[in-house]
Parts: sequence; C-alpha cells; structure tokens
Amino acid sequence: MKAMREIAVIGVGQTRVDEHWDKSLRELAGEAALAALNDARRESVDAIYVGNMLSGSANHQQHLGTWLADWIGLRYSEALRLESACSSGGSAFRAGLMAVASGELESALVVGAEKMTDSPNAEITATLATAADADWELEQGLSFVAINALVMQRYLHEYGWKHNDFANFSINAHANAMKNPNARFQEALSESGYQKSPMVSDPINLMDASPMGDGAAAAVLVPADTLASSHSPLITVVGSASATDSIAVHSRRDPLWLRAAESSAAEAYRQAGVKPEEIDFFELHDAFTIMAALSLEACGFAERGQGPRLALEGDIRPDGRIPIATCGGLKARGHPVGATGMYQIVESVLQLRGQASGVQIDGARIGMAQNIGGSGSNIVTHILKRA
Amino acid sequence: MKAMREIAVIGVGQTRVDEHWDKSLRELAGEAALAALNDARRESVDAIYVGNMLSGSANHQQHLGTWLADWIGLRYSEALRLESACSSGGSAFRAGLMAVASGELESALVVGAEKMTDSPNAEITATLATAADADWELEQGLSFVAINALVMQRYLHEYGWKHNDFANFSINAHANAMKNPNARFQEALSESGYQKSPMVSDPINLMDASPMGDGAAAAVLVPADTLASSHSPLITVVGSASATDSIAVHSRRDPLWLRAAESSAAEAYRQAGVKPEEIDFFELHDAFTIMAALSLEACGFAERGQGPRLALEGDIRPDGRIPIATCGGLKARGHPVGATGMYQIVESVLQLRGQASGVQIDGARIGMAQNIGGSGSNIVTHILKRA
Repeated sequence: MKAMREIAVIGVGQTRVDEHWDKSLRELAGEAALAALNDARRESVDAIYVGNMLSGSANHQQHLGTWLADWIGLRYSEALRLESACSSGGSAFRAGLMAVASGELESALVVGAEKMTDSPNAEITATLATAADADWELEQGLSFVAINALVMQRYLHEYGWKHNDFANFSINAHANAMKNPNARFQEALSESGYQKSPMVSDPINLMDASPMGDGAAAAVLVPADTLASSHSPLITVVGSASATDSIAVHSRRDPLWLRAAESSAAEAYRQAGVKPEEIDFFELHDAFTIMAALSLEACGFAERGQGPRLALEGDIRPDGRIPIATCGGLKARGHPVGATGMYQIVESVLQLRGQASGVQIDGARIGMAQNIGGSGSNIVTHILKRA
Repeated sequence: MKAMREIAVIGVGQTRVDEHWDKSLRELAGEAALAALNDARRESVDAIYVGNMLSGSANHQQHLGTWLADWIGLRYSEALRLESACSSGGSAFRAGLMAVASGELESALVVGAEKMTDSPNAEITATLATAADADWELEQGLSFVAINALVMQRYLHEYGWKHNDFANFSINAHANAMKNPNARFQEALSESGYQKSPMVSDPINLMDASPMGDGAAAAVLVPADTLASSHSPLITVVGSASATDSIAVHSRRDPLWLRAAESSAAEAYRQAGVKPEEIDFFELHDAFTIMAALSLEACGFAERGQGPRLALEGDIRPDGRIPIATCGGLKARGHPVGATGMYQIVESVLQLRGQASGVQIDGARIGMAQNIGGSGSNIVTHILKRA
C-alpha cells in the first residue's frame, strides 16, 4: 500500500457451500461471522462489511449490514453492504481493510454471503446477468455464461487450443475439493467425465462452469501494531489493489486479456515487494475454465495465450509451480457469488496457517487471492503473508 | 476522527430530482459525476464509490461501480457500489472518506444515484420494503410507510401532539424548495394544503411523506494536505460516524428514540469539537415528518418528545435557531433513496461556500448532514466546516 497501516487477519470462518434448504441467508451469514469472531477471540468489532450481490432479488432483503449486525448480537455497530457483482466479497474485504487502515476503525468484520437456492434457476440466471451491461449486452439476449462462452470460443480460435486442453482446470479443482469438507462437490472428475459433460453454451460445458450455491465466509481485521508481539501465526495483508475494465466485453480492444487482473496484480506485487514466482498458491476466480487461464496469464504465470499449458503440464496442481484452487476453487467448492471473494481470503489465511480446508501446500508463506466481478470488469487482488 | 487524515471536498455536482423519463440511471449518475469532477477541476480519481439501493430490481442493472466508471471515461479506475437502504449515499461517502484517509487512495469520487420511475409504483413499494426485516416485519404485511406510521401514531399517543403540529416541517421544506431549481416540488404548501392532503397510512398523509424521484449527486474527496495552501474555500469533513439499531422497529426498547442518530451525532460532535448550538444548518433526513422530529431530538436540538416544538416555533426556518431542509429536504427536493445522502453532502458543501441550491444561510460555517437507512436502523452523520 502507498502509506497504509499494516493490517492483520486474526480470525476466519466459513460455512460449507451447498444447497442449504434448511438455512436462511441470515443464518448462513451469521454462522460464518460468529465463527470468525470466535476464531479471533473477539466479542465485538467497530464495523461490519457485508459483500453480497443478489439478496435484493433472490432473498427479498436488502440492508444486509444492519440486518447482520443485529442478528449476530452486534446491534449498534456500524455496518453496510458492498456490491461489485461476483467480486463483492473481495471489494468488501478491501473496503474494510482501508477503513481499518485509516485509523477511524480499530477492527472490522468482513462477511461474504449469498443464498441462491431460494429462487428459481431462471430468475437467478436473469439476476446474475445484471453484472453485465443491461443496455448493450443483455438487450442482445446474452446470459452471463453466454458472454463467457463467446470469450472462450474466440480464445480457442485465436490461440489454437482444443476444448479438452482445459480439462485439467476442472479435474484439479475436483481432486482438491475431495479433501475439503466445506466444498459443494467432494468428488473426483475424470477426463471422460469432463468430455461427456452436457453443453451449456458452446464451448462451455457443465464441467467448465462453476456451480452456484449457498454459503458465507468471514474474516476479522485489526491493525497489526495493536497485536501482542507474541501473536502467532501473524497473517498480514501485504498487497491490495483493485481495477475495472469496460463493463461490456465487446468494448475491449482485446477481449482475451484481463487488463484489470494485470494492473491490480502488478500493484499488489509492488506493494508486497514480491514477484509471481514467489507466490506459493493462487486462489483464482475459476468461474469458468477460460477465466482460470486468463487470470494466470494476466498475473504473470503464463505467456499470453498459454494459460492452458499450466493445466496440461500439471503446474497448477498442489505439487506444481503455482497451485490453484487448493480448496476446490469456484468449480468444486462452489461459487455463491457475493461470498466467493471472502472464501478465497479465508482459504488463503488457512493455507498460511497450515490449516487449509482442502489440500495444504507445505510451507506456504505467501498467497494471492483474486476475485473477479462481471466478465473481467472488476478485479480485486490481495496478497497475504505469514510473518 | 480518531487519527484520521483531514479530507477536503473539492467538487460537487447534482441533477434535478424529478421524474426523468428522458434519462437513464446511467445518464443521471454520469451527469452528477462529471459535474463534480468539473467543479473539482480534476479529470480522474483513484476510485469511484456509488451509493444506490434499488438498481438491481428497478433498473435490472447491478455492478454500478464498474458501469459508471466506464460511462464517465474513467474505465480502469477502482470502483464499487455501497448499499445501506436509504442511507446508501451517506455510507458511500463515509467509505470513500476512510479509503482516502487510509493513504491507499489519493482521491475518490462518491456518487449517489437512484432512478425510481422506471418501475411500477407497486413494485417500487415492495422493493423499498426490503430495507425492513423481510422475515419479521414484511411478513406481517407492513410496507415501509406503514412502519413509519406506527411510529408516528405511537409518538402522538405518547407525547400528546396533534397531527397538525407537524405541518411546519413540510411547509418549511416546500418554502425553501421554491428557491432550489434542483428541487422536485418548487411550490409552496399551505397549512390547509397539509391538512387536506390524502391519507397514506394513518396518521401519515401525503404531505408528511417525501416523494420518490430520480436523481444523482456527487462529490470529489482528496486529502486536505495535498491542496495548495491558497485553496479557497476549503471545505473539510471534521466529523464522520455511523451506527446501526435493530433492523425491526419492534425490537427496540424505545421505538420513539433514534439511538443510532444520537450515538453517531455524539461521535461526530466529539470529532469536530463542536456542540449542537454551533451547527449553522442541519441537512436532516425528513423522509417523513416524524423522522425530522426524532432526528432533532436525538441530535440534541430538542428535548425528548419535543421535536414538533421546533417546527411550531419557527426554529427550523432559515432565520431560526437550527435551519433544516434549506434546499427543500427530502420532502420537497425529493427522495431518490440511494442518492439522498449525497444530495445532503452536496447541499452542505454549497451552503458552506455561500452557493446554496435553495435558501442560503448567511455566514454558514459549520453544517451537519444526517442520512437514515431503514426506520432509523442505519444512520450516518457528517459534520463539514469551512476553514
């Protein structure tokens, strides 16, 4: 950060991602929030930041800041909700980080929460599409997956990859999720399973796409200098940046390059004083396999157009050069949209503590989390480090 | 603020509040944003914070941060949306303030925007109700105005006021709005006009209630220490605080006391080092006349249960002890919900510059703005000062 006070993450909590028919959004958000406070050994915080995208439509409830503060026994605390489509969780984390760094707050609880199964699928599809440009994309009849399918189609055409070259992104995610009790799909995916998966929007098939789900994840932030010098393990945020791109994909000079991922990652690397090769694991935003490839390229782990190579050559596996989706990623842990960014932060903190939900990377010391809103139109990148 | 860097508001912009059938939400937000940048003589900012409540439902568009950044030519800037029901504007301003104070950003553009006339009234009424508790208030069939009507009914009963004792809140607002070209209703209201107004939800009649509307208001924030010492007039934020209360009114020990207004105002006074009697004008949240009375009491301008006395005795008029609604307030300027908090900030800055949109208070040097989300459940208070 330019001159920002160093912030530590002292507590995290999460629910399983699932179809939680027996729990409301309130209960899920509350469960993750209280788990994070309990983990932090705090009874209260100065403010609560809730990342959520869909609750106004999907749950007929807005005003989630106040609503959650009240529910978890922190009535009277400052609270608000933040939204940037699927990067709402990452945006909430960054806003909480800056608020605590400003000196105005001594602590913040950031919660990402989403409950998607209360609405019919068609309604959720329409609501998810509000992350795209209503006037100039949705008017053409595009859904959100269709926009990503156009990008993937172009990518295959431009760089000569075959659809099957993306299989390992999903296979790796599912393999890792088998060890994560909080993952929605704790089951293996074979190459033939990937190939035979039904088409959703050509060339994106069901196994290229992350599943929706209900879930919540939370973290507690405090200034590192307020902790006892013996505090251990000390996990701090050493890089934080966010950038946008055009909301409509067709407005980009190069629709196959995530410029906002490149610039936010570059700024986070600069703040942290690290290079891509020093990152021990990367919690990326594999909402679709194509997005995993594009993120790896924009963040400096692969040459332009060569993202799939990392999957083909095993570099993304837990024992590879840049492990991704160690908890199952969006693909297998599940993608409760407004909560996903906070699941990434929680998983990063747990990895750095040596307590990963999924596959633990031995000796992980520096991790990166990247949350993407819209079709690459809002990207939030964080680098966390164990002291 | 506890240890916060001093922040200046160097530019403001607003559209008229109206039924803007000829303009989209994007155009309204863009107009206010560009006016604020122009007023600040800046071409760009580090980040854009958009306060909005209803766009997911009312305009089928979320992700307003990215969407607006793109539209106003600031594609690639950091951007996000903030929501706390009707205090979304105030919450966005406070989040932007803390982000700039953190040292992470050197400037921020905060925009409040709402377009309510694109949807049928019944749909808007249902959507506004999502600011209340869906499970325990809306399930009873309550609308948002009905919740406020219950509060007003109880207030009349408890303190012995008559409905007509609230007339001057609306009459003063309309009188002031006649001088504000950006007000929705630039016309006088008589006492008999107030009395004969049709009932909405007993005892709240149409003239107790603020009208919805379309509009946007914006401000540019920078650290004061980055400005030339000759910068004039220098308007800084000297107090900023926010607090919540129970989301459901029935959960409060005293439903006739705005505890979150009291605590956030007390903290803002403390930061600013001022007492209520030093406030030259108060941009309060008169969504309903009863809310104006309750705000005045909680902020120390009237004894408990005595808010209407300030209206009856003329204390709230431009020449009174504590002028309110100098631009027309929510009642006559209009209440485009997620934009209102930013209209309050813009009006406060213009008052301090001696350029009020409505009635100018001679020599105004310290002003307060208070934005209320839900039925007193999320309250954001700011004190601004001319150096």
